[in-house]
Amino acid sequence: MSDHETVPAEVDHEEEIPEDHPRYQDLLTRHRIEAGVEKGITHLQGMHAEGRGSAFDYLLGEETIPSAAAAERAAAARLLLADEPVLSINGNVAALVPGEMVQLAAAVDADLEVNLFNRTPERIDAIVDHLAEHGAEDVKGIEADARIPNLDHKRAKVDSDGIYAADVVVVPLEDGDRAEALEAMGKTEIVIDLNPLSRSPQVAEIPIVDNIIRAVPNMTEHARELEGETESTLQAIVEEFDRDEALEAAEQRIRSGRL
Amino acid sequence: MSDHETVPAEVDHEEEIPEDHPRYQDLLTRHRIEAGVEKGITHLQGMHAEGRGSAFDYLLGEETIPSAAAAERAAAARLLLADEPVLSINGNVAALVPGEMVQLAAAVDADLEVNLFNRTPERIDAIVDHLAEHGAEDVKGIEADARIPNLDHKRAKVDSDGIYAADVVVVPLEDGDRAEALEAMGKTEIVIDLNPLSRSPQVAEIPIVDNIIRAVPNMTEHARELEGETESTLQAIVEEFDRDEALEAAEQRIRSGRL
Repeated sequence: MSDHETVPAEVDHEEEIPEDHPRYQDLLTRHRIEAGVEKGITHLQGMHAEGRGSAFDYLLGEETIPSAAAAERAAAARLLLADEPVLSINGNVAALVPGEMVQLAAAVDADLEVNLFNRTPERIDAIVDHLAEHGAEDVKGIEADARIPNLDHKRAKVDSDGIYAADVVVVPLEDGDRAEALEAMGKTEIVIDLNPLSRSPQVAEIPIVDNIIRAVPNMTEHARELEGETESTLQAIVEEFDRDEALEAAEQRIRSGRL
Repeated sequence: MSDHETVPAEVDHEEEIPEDHPRYQDLLTRHRIEAGVEKGITHLQGMHAEGRGSAFDYLLGEETIPSAAAAERAAAARLLLADEPVLSINGNVAALVPGEMVQLAAAVDADLEVNLFNRTPERIDAIVDHLAEHGAEDVKGIEADARIPNLDHKRAKVDSDGIYAADVVVVPLEDGDRAEALEAMGKTEIVIDLNPLSRSPQVAEIPIVDNIIRAVPNMTEHARELEGETESTLQAIVEEFDRDEALEAAEQRIRSGRL
């Protein structure tokens, strides 16, 4: 890519990025991921994954398209209906939206659980500390006393009273194998992913094709607005959402959008 | 992105990546960039840029499309016609195609010059050493006793007998500001970039929209084949190449291709 070096690469604090910069969100995301790598929260490969996402976001026009907005509203409704919702946190999620995930968890009364592909005690600790700095009081995934069936690697490790027992799981920026294994367990998955053809959004009940830094605050806003609605109203919002139509709309936008 | 974690993230040597893996090239590129960051050759942001490129490559179908093949042939012809061609090397280029750049330089009798956006003596040394390990005998860009006009930052630094004096410069994975400043100096630019709408390919006389790990060996092959052809034959190959048509074809493929 050509564009990646046209702004100062070295920004110490995100406040230094001008909010009116046409590529503000992209710069902010890149800065947060880079800081995450430096703090030991994000794996180096997370930087690569984020770059990949940034290209899809560029093609989407770097905005929440209407089908994504509908998905975010349905996701909020589905989380409010859930008995034991869990928000899964990996290294990129922790780096990009730590405070935003804490707020979403509070808005829908969900647990936060750290789950890493490249799991090391140091990274788990760094992420738990980072979430605590952003207001998280109780974070699951440290004990990891249960396993997702049919999944090797350390990413199968979950808490028995966390993801293992959850009925609805939000899995942002997730790898396809894990999303499929969670689906096989019968979990209702809400996936946030910028590539509509990835396996994760393909298996999700509610796929959100949007940048996580927009998607999570949007979900929180919808949840706050929908709080207190009757179960049947929430149910209707979930049922009204058409996942295939949403995936199709995202693909359509990427094909014909800003490029 | 979902797919980024479905293969082992930790590969110590690139030989461990199975060549028949459907995503072999993408895995190889990612591994080389990661190794580059670890060796101090590549800036952390290079990992992000490479991820961005990988999404465009995915949309292109991860293959050299016909218009890119034509561009690579024209680039080889143009380099053979040049008086003082220089191949510019940044951290990603050094990590991804060190030996391939050395071979191209030999095939077209060009100089190699290190030029970094985030220039530090340590990175310059690491890259020069890395290129030497891959067969480079003489690498420019260490002295950096001249400046590209109208360009701030350390990336303006070039060698007076290198890029400053060159008539044709290959600038792969380059930032737009620098590509524009080189164009303003009257240089003939050959740009390799996976996003056809980036400013760098837009200002290039020969834009190559292809993955650098395919483009550079292809250029070398064309150069070897065209060696010994008359100046008028080479000239005809260059003139036959239509840059606007090539950019259009690449955009078309990204819109309608594999996605």
